[in-house]
Amino acid sequence: MSQVMPVDAIQGMDKFFKMHLINSLSGIKSPCLIGTKSHRDINNLALFNSVIHLGAAPPLMGFMLRPLTVPRHTYHNILAHRHFTINHVTEEIYRKAHQTSANYPEQVSEFEACALTPHFSDQIIAPYVAESPLKIGLELEETHAIQANGNTFVVGRIIEVIYPDQVVDDNGHIDLSELSAMGVCGLEDYYTLEKKDRLPYARP
Amino acid sequence: MSQVMPVDAIQGMDKFFKMHLINSLSGIKSPCLIGTKSHRDINNLALFNSVIHLGAAPPLMGFMLRPLTVPRHTYHNILAHRHFTINHVTEEIYRKAHQTSANYPEQVSEFEACALTPHFSDQIIAPYVAESPLKIGLELEETHAIQANGNTFVVGRIIEVIYPDQVVDDNGHIDLSELSAMGVCGLEDYYTLEKKDRLPYARP
Repeated sequence: MSQVMPVDAIQGMDKFFKMHLINSLSGIKSPCLIGTKSHRDINNLALFNSVIHLGAAPPLMGFMLRPLTVPRHTYHNILAHRHFTINHVTEEIYRKAHQTSANYPEQVSEFEACALTPHFSDQIIAPYVAESPLKIGLELEETHAIQANGNTFVVGRIIEVIYPDQVVDDNGHIDLSELSAMGVCGLEDYYTLEKKDRLPYARP
Repeated sequence: MSQVMPVDAIQGMDKFFKMHLINSLSGIKSPCLIGTKSHRDINNLALFNSVIHLGAAPPLMGFMLRPLTVPRHTYHNILAHRHFTINHVTEEIYRKAHQTSANYPEQVSEFEACALTPHFSDQIIAPYVAESPLKIGLELEETHAIQANGNTFVVGRIIEVIYPDQVVDDNGHIDLSELSAMGVCGLEDYYTLEKKDRLPYARP
């Protein structure tokens, strides 16, 4: 039996039911740890599930930040140093990654609080997560203020990519099953991924 | 063995290797069929893998459109009628959904070309996909021009949600395994999803 839920009915639903349902509607996403460094040199980590691809030439990725009505360490740190890292979350570290979403004070590093290890490269001032096998270093390109709810969409240019040889095939595809990458739906539900099929470029 | 790939090396890679690698970096996404109606009343369908959640109050979702240097039927149709639908892709229909990404001329409906069935509600002028079990009807809220590559980020307000009772639990979570929802990485690789764990709201 299908439910047809008009917006008035959605607005009238229980607050948590509504939040979980609306959060689930975008389906599966890669949980990503975004690493930044504060103006006081604290290594910050935060979990996002809104990272998307923007284009390959120039190589760009973006993600969505919640409204800036409370301090958003990730945002302020990106403005301070213009660098951030995106670190994929595997079966091995998803519990620690989830724990970074707790509301730690600014002077606490989520790396220490959640037992993850910062890793640095020559190119990027922000910390990578050593335990993450697929790491991307980016430079801030632009931000967009979403009028409808005060979110900020952040666009970054890819400066560096760190990945294990064996998960990338000769054509550049990354095998997420080989990587043991997790998926997430909403804020709480974690999924494992199994590669099923490759479909070629479609023609009419 | 890990590869550390600085941006200069990325720029110098084979065009297709680079495209697949950069496309894969955002990880797993839900392939979504976006339904629109043209100013000539043609029912249009196009496949996107950049749909994200923006917020629950007001209920908002967004997605990324490629540069408007060639006609983008989805974009022009959304501007014409201000309505669009997001339809989740299951194991049953992912091959047909993938085929909608072929470059059909404006007067051809991808519904007919790809053997999918338009479904209409009273609330939304754009067509839903009857074969998709999870359907969302939206109204255009705002658009953002990405300066770095000419993409357009489209924000829509959720007007209506259509879903099967049995995939939504008492707290509003949607079970993507029950839905047989597919995941996609890059443009070609499709994954099945298995629910593994639910982690509660994290506290320090």
